[in-house]
Amino acid sequence: MKAHVSIGICQLKQTYDFEANLAKAISMIDQAAGQGAEIAVLPEMFITPYEPASIKKAAAFSGTAIEELKQRAANHKIYIVGGSLPYRESDGKLFNRAFVFDSAGDLVFTHDKIHLFDCTPPGGPSVKESETITPGTQLNTFFTPWGEASVIVCYDIRFTPLTQVLVKKGIRMLFVPAAFSLATGNAHWEMLVRMRAVEMQGIVVGVQPAMNRDLRYVPYGHSIVASPWGDVVFKAGAGETVHVVKADISEIDRIRQMFPLLTHIRHDLYTTKWGKA
Amino acid sequence: MKAHVSIGICQLKQTYDFEANLAKAISMIDQAAGQGAEIAVLPEMFITPYEPASIKKAAAFSGTAIEELKQRAANHKIYIVGGSLPYRESDGKLFNRAFVFDSAGDLVFTHDKIHLFDCTPPGGPSVKESETITPGTQLNTFFTPWGEASVIVCYDIRFTPLTQVLVKKGIRMLFVPAAFSLATGNAHWEMLVRMRAVEMQGIVVGVQPAMNRDLRYVPYGHSIVASPWGDVVFKAGAGETVHVVKADISEIDRIRQMFPLLTHIRHDLYTTKWGKA
Repeated sequence: MKAHVSIGICQLKQTYDFEANLAKAISMIDQAAGQGAEIAVLPEMFITPYEPASIKKAAAFSGTAIEELKQRAANHKIYIVGGSLPYRESDGKLFNRAFVFDSAGDLVFTHDKIHLFDCTPPGGPSVKESETITPGTQLNTFFTPWGEASVIVCYDIRFTPLTQVLVKKGIRMLFVPAAFSLATGNAHWEMLVRMRAVEMQGIVVGVQPAMNRDLRYVPYGHSIVASPWGDVVFKAGAGETVHVVKADISEIDRIRQMFPLLTHIRHDLYTTKWGKA
Repeated sequence: MKAHVSIGICQLKQTYDFEANLAKAISMIDQAAGQGAEIAVLPEMFITPYEPASIKKAAAFSGTAIEELKQRAANHKIYIVGGSLPYRESDGKLFNRAFVFDSAGDLVFTHDKIHLFDCTPPGGPSVKESETITPGTQLNTFFTPWGEASVIVCYDIRFTPLTQVLVKKGIRMLFVPAAFSLATGNAHWEMLVRMRAVEMQGIVVGVQPAMNRDLRYVPYGHSIVASPWGDVVFKAGAGETVHVVKADISEIDRIRQMFPLLTHIRHDLYTTKWGKA
């Protein structure tokens, strides 16, 4: 297994022009690859602001976006965690779906956001994602040269059983495309990414769109990479940025050996499992 | 249910003199009650530094400590979360046991620390608690005029299934007597207390001994009270202090209504439960 991984954080500033957002995402992936990224990561719903009317329209562009990501992965020979896209199935249902392409350009993983954000944080805004999106029902992992990995989307990160289940499946890296608002971003974003890294004793990569006050839903920015000890390896500001972060994969084993949290889980007393009790 | 609760944080500076530690704990409870505390909270192993040889000797003083706490609760008509004490059962086994007395002085709750700290954090020190302590096997709650509550001890806070199970049991307040070291304190203490408050959408009260560099195991101090939104309601410094914190219990319902995280748990997809699968 490789000891280090170079992760390209693509914190793009979205507009209401879906084609421009996609073009920018592709250009940021190119920049990240040029700077040595081995995995490029985009935010949640990267081709559209996180607003119901816009999300529904943007779904028409997702097919093109998927093709472009696939080609870029193959051309650059890098993994692409394609944030998430509004993906309409043939039965008409719309999902908030994450796509991962490996360095051959093969689609190796999808995740449909499981937990839909129907909330009003203190300070707003009020969001009811379930009016637009159908929730996912699966939790999977994919293999990389840096170990097993997975992707969950935004609000999913608040539900601790997911990371518990994923750790049991052996993941060492977790990618979290997200679009936290200013209110939830300020209150919880950094803490959530760092805490999940501490709990899974792995690397967590949280990628947000850049802050854009011209949008009705203003995303928080501040993408973060956290180490297996919960340290901040990289934290972006609010603005648009492409940044390649070198993360130490070998630290995962060192921390798991010195501080064997995962072996101290009392499986004899309590259970976290996928599936009904 | 009462809308506010006044919590007396007793962050005492321990020495190797167990009787002096107990006398100081009692004096701090008296001060807290004098300042209007309705619940007084002590740290983990408050009568002894968190060191194996000392813990074993201090167990002889726990009977007296329990009696004193009981009397103080009855006299002041307040709840006392008696941190934890080294408690030797008749079979010789030593537990790291938390005791709660209600405002009539009745013992209403005990918790034996479930997860024993056998770890070396980066920066040390190396600890092997399981050489001294027998782990607990139970998870319970107790009733208060401010709603259902529970106590877990120190390292227990890292294991997310506990708070998930306790929330299902209806708790609104969680007390965490602890003795984090400088290394784990700096890295994770505040984040853990705040994150558990966010996840349970309740009030979490983490109480540590004051920092004392004359001890071989130096505790971190920095006791914290976190709100249901994860805000820091109070954070102590490193030194000895008695501080009465007024916490807003009614905020729990407001947050749970606006931001219904607990109703979004997908019980149809995954399970966290007490007991084997």
